[in-house]
Amino acid sequence: MADVRIVLVGPKFEGNIGAIARSMANFDLSDLYLVDPCDIGDEAYRRAKHGSSVLDNAKKVGTLSEAVEGCFLVVGTSGIVTKGEKNYVRVPISVSEFADRLDGYSEKVAVLFGREDIGLLQDELARCDLLITIPASDSYPILNLSHAATVVMYELSKAVVSEPTPADEEEKEQMLSFFDGLLDSIDYPEQRKENTSVMFRRLMGRAVPTKWEYNTILGVFGDASKIIMKKR
Amino acid sequence: MADVRIVLVGPKFEGNIGAIARSMANFDLSDLYLVDPCDIGDEAYRRAKHGSSVLDNAKKVGTLSEAVEGCFLVVGTSGIVTKGEKNYVRVPISVSEFADRLDGYSEKVAVLFGREDIGLLQDELARCDLLITIPASDSYPILNLSHAATVVMYELSKAVVSEPTPADEEEKEQMLSFFDGLLDSIDYPEQRKENTSVMFRRLMGRAVPTKWEYNTILGVFGDASKIIMKKR
Repeated sequence: MADVRIVLVGPKFEGNIGAIARSMANFDLSDLYLVDPCDIGDEAYRRAKHGSSVLDNAKKVGTLSEAVEGCFLVVGTSGIVTKGEKNYVRVPISVSEFADRLDGYSEKVAVLFGREDIGLLQDELARCDLLITIPASDSYPILNLSHAATVVMYELSKAVVSEPTPADEEEKEQMLSFFDGLLDSIDYPEQRKENTSVMFRRLMGRAVPTKWEYNTILGVFGDASKIIMKKR
Repeated sequence: MADVRIVLVGPKFEGNIGAIARSMANFDLSDLYLVDPCDIGDEAYRRAKHGSSVLDNAKKVGTLSEAVEGCFLVVGTSGIVTKGEKNYVRVPISVSEFADRLDGYSEKVAVLFGREDIGLLQDELARCDLLITIPASDSYPILNLSHAATVVMYELSKAVVSEPTPADEEEKEQMLSFFDGLLDSIDYPEQRKENTSVMFRRLMGRAVPTKWEYNTILGVFGDASKIIMKKR
């Protein structure tokens, strides 16, 4: 199984945090980050049961950036599936498909769960390399937070670890910024730039590239933009 | 998906019943039987949210026999996996294996969940046609009742997320040839060209891009090569 960090962004009910800590223990996970959480008290510990050590060791941070530091892949979760293909920020893959793709990964993967009521915000979603969803009822697709987290952990725990050659976070971000540089160099329309940039991040997220692939793409984009800029 | 009835045997906490009602609504299930349950009040409805009609229509019965009447298959759930092959009553299959076997079934299937503390009793297990379990941590395999039920419902209902329109063959080949064109335009080393070209094809294959994504990438690569070639 990949090295999974669970990140709860702005959780409002301590009962959910406790229930998630228990499920983490059920699936042998222990790395829990809480971004700007509610207070954690008796109710959380009551729900955590034998997962109380996960709660004890949970790291509370103020920003999403701190919570995903050092993570190679940042994965958002959403109960709302956008049908329109162009709203890239919200086009997910299913959690089982994601689990399949993660097979063989041993890098740190952060899986983000948003607030109970409004989920992840637009800028939080934009930070994600890919978005996953739990296929559910069209008429009522929103699972309770701890139940959604449990289904995701269940699926991921079915995936097996082997040995990849993973790119590190810096290489990945560099490749994405080289793609942005390429857009700049060809005078890509300003109003479409962000959408195209997020699209590329998602595309790469879905492909789950290796270190070698990232470096190769980095070389191609870098050379192309350099030539274009120099010739201007 | 098979015609699934959820049967809770002797549930002690109304919160769990409510949470399960919500998850049932999340997975388009509505047939809930409660055998000798605790009282159902505000807490159950609070947890059920938009699944309250599942709670309203839940059938309370006094015995397991009444709850499984008319069901073709009676399936027990257990967090305790017996390794000894001879204790047949407690040798389960995994929930995902069960979901595979149920594919194509249209008969009524009852899935039984036992009490929060002691699960299903020996004679209740004996009534089951088969036993399923959720693979989990050796050190803490017992999930919270509503979380276990949710994972089982998720597996049984696993459907496909509506996929965006995939690109057709011609568009895909065109995009790949534009990438090759980009390599040419930057004087990419001849001996590495084929390898890089295949790598990009594989990467895109894994990402399974949509029509729109292909066209967007096509535009970026096309513009870049055009600018580079024109400036030579």
